[in-house]
Amino acid sequence: MMKDDGELEALREKVRLVTADIVRDVHKRMDLAREIGEIKGRLGIDVRDEKVEQEVRNSVLALADDIGMNREFMLRLLNILLEESESLQAKRRPQVQKQTHLTIFMKARQLEAAGRNIIHMEVGEPDYAPPALVGDSLSDSFARGKYHYTDTRGTMELRQAIAKQAKVHEEQLIVTPGGRFGVFSAIVSLLRPGQEIIVIEPAWPAYRECADFAGVRTKVLKTRLEDKWAPDIRHLEEMITPTTKMIVLNYPNNPTGKILDNATMDRIVSLAKDNDLFLLSDEVYADYAFAREFHGVLEYGYENSIMISSFSKRYAMTGFRVGYAISSKEIISKMTRVQAIGITSVAEPMQYAALAALGEDHLENVKTMKSRLDFVTRKLRELSLNFVQPDGAMYVYPKIPNMDDVTLVERMLEKGVAVAPGSGFGESYKHFIRISACQPEKQLAKGLEVMAAVIKERS
Amino acid sequence: MMKDDGELEALREKVRLVTADIVRDVHKRMDLAREIGEIKGRLGIDVRDEKVEQEVRNSVLALADDIGMNREFMLRLLNILLEESESLQAKRRPQVQKQTHLTIFMKARQLEAAGRNIIHMEVGEPDYAPPALVGDSLSDSFARGKYHYTDTRGTMELRQAIAKQAKVHEEQLIVTPGGRFGVFSAIVSLLRPGQEIIVIEPAWPAYRECADFAGVRTKVLKTRLEDKWAPDIRHLEEMITPTTKMIVLNYPNNPTGKILDNATMDRIVSLAKDNDLFLLSDEVYADYAFAREFHGVLEYGYENSIMISSFSKRYAMTGFRVGYAISSKEIISKMTRVQAIGITSVAEPMQYAALAALGEDHLENVKTMKSRLDFVTRKLRELSLNFVQPDGAMYVYPKIPNMDDVTLVERMLEKGVAVAPGSGFGESYKHFIRISACQPEKQLAKGLEVMAAVIKERS
Repeated sequence: MMKDDGELEALREKVRLVTADIVRDVHKRMDLAREIGEIKGRLGIDVRDEKVEQEVRNSVLALADDIGMNREFMLRLLNILLEESESLQAKRRPQVQKQTHLTIFMKARQLEAAGRNIIHMEVGEPDYAPPALVGDSLSDSFARGKYHYTDTRGTMELRQAIAKQAKVHEEQLIVTPGGRFGVFSAIVSLLRPGQEIIVIEPAWPAYRECADFAGVRTKVLKTRLEDKWAPDIRHLEEMITPTTKMIVLNYPNNPTGKILDNATMDRIVSLAKDNDLFLLSDEVYADYAFAREFHGVLEYGYENSIMISSFSKRYAMTGFRVGYAISSKEIISKMTRVQAIGITSVAEPMQYAALAALGEDHLENVKTMKSRLDFVTRKLRELSLNFVQPDGAMYVYPKIPNMDDVTLVERMLEKGVAVAPGSGFGESYKHFIRISACQPEKQLAKGLEVMAAVIKERS
Repeated sequence: MMKDDGELEALREKVRLVTADIVRDVHKRMDLAREIGEIKGRLGIDVRDEKVEQEVRNSVLALADDIGMNREFMLRLLNILLEESESLQAKRRPQVQKQTHLTIFMKARQLEAAGRNIIHMEVGEPDYAPPALVGDSLSDSFARGKYHYTDTRGTMELRQAIAKQAKVHEEQLIVTPGGRFGVFSAIVSLLRPGQEIIVIEPAWPAYRECADFAGVRTKVLKTRLEDKWAPDIRHLEEMITPTTKMIVLNYPNNPTGKILDNATMDRIVSLAKDNDLFLLSDEVYADYAFAREFHGVLEYGYENSIMISSFSKRYAMTGFRVGYAISSKEIISKMTRVQAIGITSVAEPMQYAALAALGEDHLENVKTMKSRLDFVTRKLRELSLNFVQPDGAMYVYPKIPNMDDVTLVERMLEKGVAVAPGSGFGESYKHFIRISACQPEKQLAKGLEVMAAVIKERS
């Protein structure tokens, strides 16, 4: 006993000394990072260099293996060091508030509050109404006392109804406050700081925001208009390291409208399986598939996949904030824990409304959206803009000639038309904008006229 | 240019060398942690030792200051090292699922789904109805198209109405999906991993859950029945360290019903000011104050305080999931960022319903609750149970003779009565239960009879 006590104290002293060494070395590393940042600034090169980073990562891995150390933990630690180096290097670069579809939406709302009329082509919020039964359900919910805490995963009725439709067990499902919270709770419950996710850009910014929030690093696989927004699977494969834990998919894609062909999807699922990665598939636009049939991730039966869906787009119920996630029982149970901590449960009247919507037809909505997208793309062709005809979803993502996106977006907003800057979906897309087809044709026509005028003015 | 290139390469080589040193030292540290874990296992002592940990933290902070290094980053890094050490040390210890009012509520719901009748004295959910206007607003919301994305902070109408009532500017306010999300976003947006909050126990478990979620350490100030649940302010003062960043208050208290006297509240606010701490004051039971007037944190005008409120208890609107937080503009803006990442905005029909409730009278609810609490405490006195008469809120927290809480709770649940185990509010309260007075007297009477019988059986 006495011997153990003394030994404990001696070991603790050793811990103190080695901790101090680590602190000093980390400090040294940060000083070096600052110096490198200054030189990079002079040379005008990017702060983040994926290639150099990967070299560092590989050499740390080799060393970790050499001395018999836990690879995963070491990489997490390294990622935190890299992140801090990067932020030190970036410190003297001018910081601009990033513009996204949401910041533009907020600006548009403020202009409206000040009395301006704005055409909303920036936000993915259909203008058509939810099914009439949803309205009835709202009155009904009060009379029937449907306004209590529910099971964190959602009411049994709603879960069973969704589960039946999706052909899964109700324990594989959680009802979330919007698809967004499903993305959030999947990322924060499954990943740890210092791990990595791979996001295919252009992409809805929420994936990276949730990763940043959780201290998870985002690695970006860029896709190009020239390749019809198809991801390069060989490149994807090369990006996977031992700390890579998740691939995020979002098809039909926001903002490009792309749907992957089956062969590509097969290869991505295989890659995820082979490397034991989570596959987070955001399928909130699944109903809006025009050019080809959409095959969701659940069809692959891979237990580490998480499918995100929502009532927002299908039934035009954005403001009800009801979505759901389907995965394995184990993953749903982890996501449930996060949801219990954050919100207890989704508002019961909203779950009741979602239940009312579930049996209703949404094909009319799909038809409306297709015809609007056709209208927008026809107009864009007349303007000789370069874009890929969307396979699905609610957007067109054209390239803008001779002009950066934020300039165009701001000029258009001055003239009463809100569109989303392309760089909100990935910083290398400064020459794109996203046009949302969630307005009637007449409004879309007006908005596109304003866009044409602003582009012409400039050239 | 050439010179810069060469310099860059030389610096990178130095980075590689120092990174390798860090890896080796971290490995050394983990080996030491493993050894310490083995000795602790032999001695049968806890893996986590707050005091030793605090010493390590303080010495790292001192060293960081000494060499001019970013404290916050160093604490994050240290936290990851400590966490890994702890998990290496804990690997072979058994894990028990903790019982709380929520786990019991879930069990009760499952029993109901299987056809059993359960008296709900475990959950803080009033049985009376929301104001009738709330029902009207639900039908109205659909007709008026109130089902869209709103400003992340809430609709202007609702924010202005709440701000007017609370006499603050609407920019000092955010509407949240329940008071819980206000607690969540305050903790995760204001604190960083490795920092600490102080929670006064017994306490609603959400504070600790949110802190755990954010990698924030919870330090507990215990209060005692013998002291009428008054916190020892001298002790509170001693607990504050350089990494302590927040004190959490919850008065009228869940579960004890305590309201602090003015002198105690004054001293706590002074302590927070003097030590530059956030003061998170969860005031969702503020309307239910019987024994003395309740003075909320906003009366102190301290800019680093965050007041949490909700429509749940005041208007019996638990299932609508609408709450709000009031603080400085800066703090609200940080909380807004978290809310934007997690949920976009609160469901608009629910915000509209909250707006309808806002002008309505809740005094009848308060009267009902007081009379029920009086009823429960009368009955408990007849049973000669030891408790403090609640000053407010909706609960009584009696001491249970000769029996641990979970045993009592499980026996009662078998007989159709759900109450909350005391240890759900702090592990040192295994001889208490929380009785919620949210049911009609007749039900409460039945529930208390069952309790009396179970206690008698045992003794």
